[in-house]
Parts: sequence; C-alpha cells; structure tokens
Amino acid sequence: MPDDDPLKRFDVVFEAEGRATGRMRNEVSLAWRKADGSAETFFQATDEGPFHGGENTAPPPLAYFSTALVGCLMTQIRAFARRLAIPLADVRVSARLHWAGEQRGRAPYVTRPVGFALDVALDGPADDADRLRLLQAAIGGCFVEQTLATGIAVHHRLQTAAGWVEV
Amino acid sequence: MPDDDPLKRFDVVFEAEGRATGRMRNEVSLAWRKADGSAETFFQATDEGPFHGGENTAPPPLAYFSTALVGCLMTQIRAFARRLAIPLADVRVSARLHWAGEQRGRAPYVTRPVGFALDVALDGPADDADRLRLLQAAIGGCFVEQTLATGIAVHHRLQTAAGWVEV
Repeated sequence: MPDDDPLKRFDVVFEAEGRATGRMRNEVSLAWRKADGSAETFFQATDEGPFHGGENTAPPPLAYFSTALVGCLMTQIRAFARRLAIPLADVRVSARLHWAGEQRGRAPYVTRPVGFALDVALDGPADDADRLRLLQAAIGGCFVEQTLATGIAVHHRLQTAAGWVEV
Repeated sequence: MPDDDPLKRFDVVFEAEGRATGRMRNEVSLAWRKADGSAETFFQATDEGPFHGGENTAPPPLAYFSTALVGCLMTQIRAFARRLAIPLADVRVSARLHWAGEQRGRAPYVTRPVGFALDVALDGPADDADRLRLLQAAIGGCFVEQTLATGIAVHHRLQTAAGWVEV
C-alpha cells in the first residue's frame, strides 16, 4: 500500500440498555450508532441455569463473550482476505476460554482470566506465509482481541439519592 | 465474613467451535465445561449487515460483546445482592462502548478500545452505602469486567503444512 495514503480514523459505538426480568434473566436492547446518525438495533437476553438461580431461558453472559471473540476474529479473517486478495475456502476456529474465581465461604467471589487460546484453520490455496499474514491482520483488526490485549478500565456511575456518582 | 474461612478456588471454562457459513455469518457451538465432567451447550451465530458484506441473519460480534458485559455485571449484582442480603427491587444498566479504528486506503485497519462506561441504577430500599458495596462486589466478581481490567494476551495457533504453529 502507498505510505502516502492518508490515515483515516473511524469510530464504532454501541449503546446497550439492560433490564432485569426473570429471576436471573437480563434483556438487553442494543443500538449500533452510525456516523450518519442512523442506528442498527438488536435485542439479546442472558440467563443462568438453576444452579445459579436462573431458569435457562437464554445463554449465560460468558457464552456471549466467547461468541464475540470467535465471531469477531472470523469476521475480520474473511473481510481482510478480500482486501489482501488471499483466497480462502473455509475458516474454522476452536477456542478455549478459562477463568478462575476465588471465594471465602459464601462471600462474593473475585474473578480473573487465566488464559484464552484460539486455534485457527484457514482452508484454501493460500500458502502458509499468506495465511499467517492474514491471521495477523485479523488479530490487529479484531475489536475484541485488541480490547483484551490492551485492557481497559470500565467507568461506572451509580445512581444515588444525591444523583449519579462515579464509582 | 470470618477471615479463617478457607479460600476456595473454582474454574470456569468455555469451549467454542466456530464455522464460517454464509458470506459473513459465523455459527458458534459452545460448551461450558463443568468440574464434574458434564457440559452445558449453546449455539449462537454472528453476521454483519450488507455494508460489511454480510446478510444480517444475526447480530454482529460487538453486540454479543456488549451483551456479555452488561449481562455479566447485572447477573453478579443480583447474585451478590442475595449473598450480601442487600434488598433489590430492580436493576437497570445503560452502557456505552466506544472503539476506534485507523486505516490507510483499503489496507486492513487496526482497532483499539476508546472507552466503556456503565450507568447502574439499583432500585429498592437499600441505602446508598449498601448499593455502592453491592456494585463494587459485582464488578470484582464479573468475569468480563475483570478480564477487561486485567487485559490478557490471547494465544493463537495457525494450522500450516507443517502442523500447528504458535502465532
């Protein structure tokens, strides 16, 4: 690519409104806010199994997280295969996501990520060097991967009698 | 809580198998592997809109990511309200997730998180101190929040003619 192409920046903004409905079910209305003022909207729900006090009406939040990670990387692999003109017949990803929690008695537990591993199979006539180049580009362009690689402090505000306060 | 309660550790493991199906659609089979050898299984799909070469048959990966973040925090708020005996009539969360990308021409873009913000409203008779205590416990126990706070290098392997190689 010519180095004198101007660097363009774009923003990706999602807004989500979560409501508690069933015992542990949460319903989430989502809006993908576009630069032109329009929005694409989605609706998703999470729940837990009976062991965690839920009713299994929807997958748990970590299923959504796992799908986000796998789906994001696979999407960028296919999008960038076209941009890089690397022929691709099929994509398969196997992922393992491992977290640990620690608790004393019935106190609220604390959690941490232990390790996330993705095995990527790219079928088609491309050679290994092109496959590697494609995977590396997809990792760099995957919003979820880069969020995990960077880490980010989530900001919280709590509604109180005195108004919204930073937590 | 008594400090002499033993510290217990537990693991949470999800496995995911992603397959590329439609133009940009990905189908993900998930298994939540339990310590007793059993598994809960789920199926989810992602897609993109026509602008990104997809067919809008399912929400995009970042909708799943946003639902994971909101659903995880809301689940822990309700789970820990019971453990801490903090009465809760309702939970509402408004979230805004902002990423940016940079690209030159049609080259693959690179992405980064800009800021994630969650506004949390906890309705019920609890006072503000208890609400704050509950929210802080939920943040510490939310797998997604702690993953973002810590950051984590995702491991990748690519299938090549010479077998699986670390990327």
